[in-house]
Amino acid sequence: MRRDEIKTPALILDLDHLDRNIEIMTAWAKSAGVALRPHAKSHKSPDIARRLLKAGALGACCATIAEAEALAAAGITGLHITSPMTTTDMLARLHRLLARGADIMVVADDPRNVDALGKIALEAGRKLPVIVEIDVGTKRTGCVEIGDAVALAKSIAQNKALAFAGVQAYWGHLQQLMPFDERKARVALNMERMRKLIAALEGAGLPPRIITGSGTGTHWLDAQHEVFTELQAGSFVFLDSCYGPLPLSPDGNPFTTSLFVAAGVVTANRPDSVTVNAGFKALATDSGTPQPVRGIAQGASYRFMGDEHGVIDFDPGAPRPELGAVIELVTSHCDPTVNLHARYVVVRGDEVVDEWPILARGY
Amino acid sequence: MRRDEIKTPALILDLDHLDRNIEIMTAWAKSAGVALRPHAKSHKSPDIARRLLKAGALGACCATIAEAEALAAAGITGLHITSPMTTTDMLARLHRLLARGADIMVVADDPRNVDALGKIALEAGRKLPVIVEIDVGTKRTGCVEIGDAVALAKSIAQNKALAFAGVQAYWGHLQQLMPFDERKARVALNMERMRKLIAALEGAGLPPRIITGSGTGTHWLDAQHEVFTELQAGSFVFLDSCYGPLPLSPDGNPFTTSLFVAAGVVTANRPDSVTVNAGFKALATDSGTPQPVRGIAQGASYRFMGDEHGVIDFDPGAPRPELGAVIELVTSHCDPTVNLHARYVVVRGDEVVDEWPILARGY
Repeated sequence: MRRDEIKTPALILDLDHLDRNIEIMTAWAKSAGVALRPHAKSHKSPDIARRLLKAGALGACCATIAEAEALAAAGITGLHITSPMTTTDMLARLHRLLARGADIMVVADDPRNVDALGKIALEAGRKLPVIVEIDVGTKRTGCVEIGDAVALAKSIAQNKALAFAGVQAYWGHLQQLMPFDERKARVALNMERMRKLIAALEGAGLPPRIITGSGTGTHWLDAQHEVFTELQAGSFVFLDSCYGPLPLSPDGNPFTTSLFVAAGVVTANRPDSVTVNAGFKALATDSGTPQPVRGIAQGASYRFMGDEHGVIDFDPGAPRPELGAVIELVTSHCDPTVNLHARYVVVRGDEVVDEWPILARGY
Repeated sequence: MRRDEIKTPALILDLDHLDRNIEIMTAWAKSAGVALRPHAKSHKSPDIARRLLKAGALGACCATIAEAEALAAAGITGLHITSPMTTTDMLARLHRLLARGADIMVVADDPRNVDALGKIALEAGRKLPVIVEIDVGTKRTGCVEIGDAVALAKSIAQNKALAFAGVQAYWGHLQQLMPFDERKARVALNMERMRKLIAALEGAGLPPRIITGSGTGTHWLDAQHEVFTELQAGSFVFLDSCYGPLPLSPDGNPFTTSLFVAAGVVTANRPDSVTVNAGFKALATDSGTPQPVRGIAQGASYRFMGDEHGVIDFDPGAPRPELGAVIELVTSHCDPTVNLHARYVVVRGDEVVDEWPILARGY
């Protein structure tokens, strides 16, 4: 099947671009001397996680217990759940994963969570590695003070069913900060705090084996400080339009967009616009509007028009696609867009070559 | 299982509130002398479509071929696809539905679409009812001029495989317009245009049997004009926070919120906030922020904090939920929120009584 004949709306994944992005990132990490455990919250796909493992990744980060379940069931090893597991349901499901032998570690940011984690690890007969998360300005999850993080590491180390495995910090609020030098300066400040935390843990006899964090926007800057032992960057596999124009190092941005949303033209009876069948239910709305690409006239722009529709406006006189034609958009935010779809339509150039289910999507 | 023990994030549907909303709407429609074909784009669930049919609805409207497939497979009759079927894929799938005997009608807004529809109806050996859509200011789909709509109706009537079934108009841009009197005035203007269209069709010997449109925000106002023969309102079953405070008639708003998103507290180590596991992937972002409800301290407010997280801020000294507790939010926009979830957790009061799959979600 050809790329422009697929059913719409659909998520298109350009395999050549994906493979190139993976190759660039893994080659860079090797040269920088840092490991990769890319975040699966972006792709939610065992197929992509497996490709990253094959290229040298340690495993996959997961944001939710559901993602960990889907990847573990597909045989992905080296799982790390980056958000605390706290509710009765999350703990019961983590227990089942441990009892089934999943290769998994978790984070904690609260001493009340340590007992609960220890209890399920003990019941599952497994020693559970726990990473202490520290908040470095995002104000979302993580211990607030360095003293809290050290006390938490101690209580984990004292629990016979748990192993203190290291520390995590994620500066989500800095990932797309511009100008680049401001991002660089803020990363340097955060690294001072990380070094203080590490020194405090070493002083307490608990040197962290794993130091994990980072994202696509700061991976290069973070690595310059040689603090993180592994990086969680995930969006680089797709490069959405938020990351597309963003400099990631003094050399710019080496990645290429691999993810597109295909939409069909449902109305073409106005001189300066067409209506397509992709709206709030096919494209994430949290980070701006998608951009029409691939054979669309220059100057064309997309507007959301409700749950199932968008309008593409054209400059006067510009050629418009025909009624029933399939067009493509670059999404502004890859993670929640992927979450709206059940599968990737995998293409090479203009040919559809495969279909990969988004097994870890939704709840 | 109790409502506060479910896995999170989850979509909770309060059955008593749902049934009450259905009862209120169907009783009103009966008294107003207008039929209901509620839009399934809101609920995407054969269980809810069946409940509406049982209460007297004619059938269900669908926004996509995928919704029509899911409802037809579940035995729902009286289907109407409210957006044009134009791509090769949509037409092939419509053909399959017709060939399998689905009870379905469609819309058109372009003469180039009539031949394609006629061809698949002929091949399926079925006469396909086609509704002509007119644009009354939304500028999304629909014929632009009354003359275009009449010409289109003629070409449908002349096609032996098609039946001209009537007209459709949807004023999505007026559904939540305030003040109420402004919405009322704009509806009255649109109805003048509808009457002109109907007169023109009658003049051409093509009186429309079905006149369909409307939504939750204008259903009462629309019905006062006695133009529509049937209404497509759908969101009333849930009443999200966009519709919640909205007056729908001079008597206010008779419906009650039945849809909630449950989230678990993952971080509770700050004095004035907690972090919960529901963000862009569990709650639609297109129409504002969700509202914490049910046992949460007054003054509490939700902030999106990325793909999987939100922060709930509290007034100083206000009681906060415990780590691991399950809280509930009212979503700002029900349709795209439902689309993020795989199932409704159906409750009566504090007890979980059922689980309904959202079979027509996603693509």
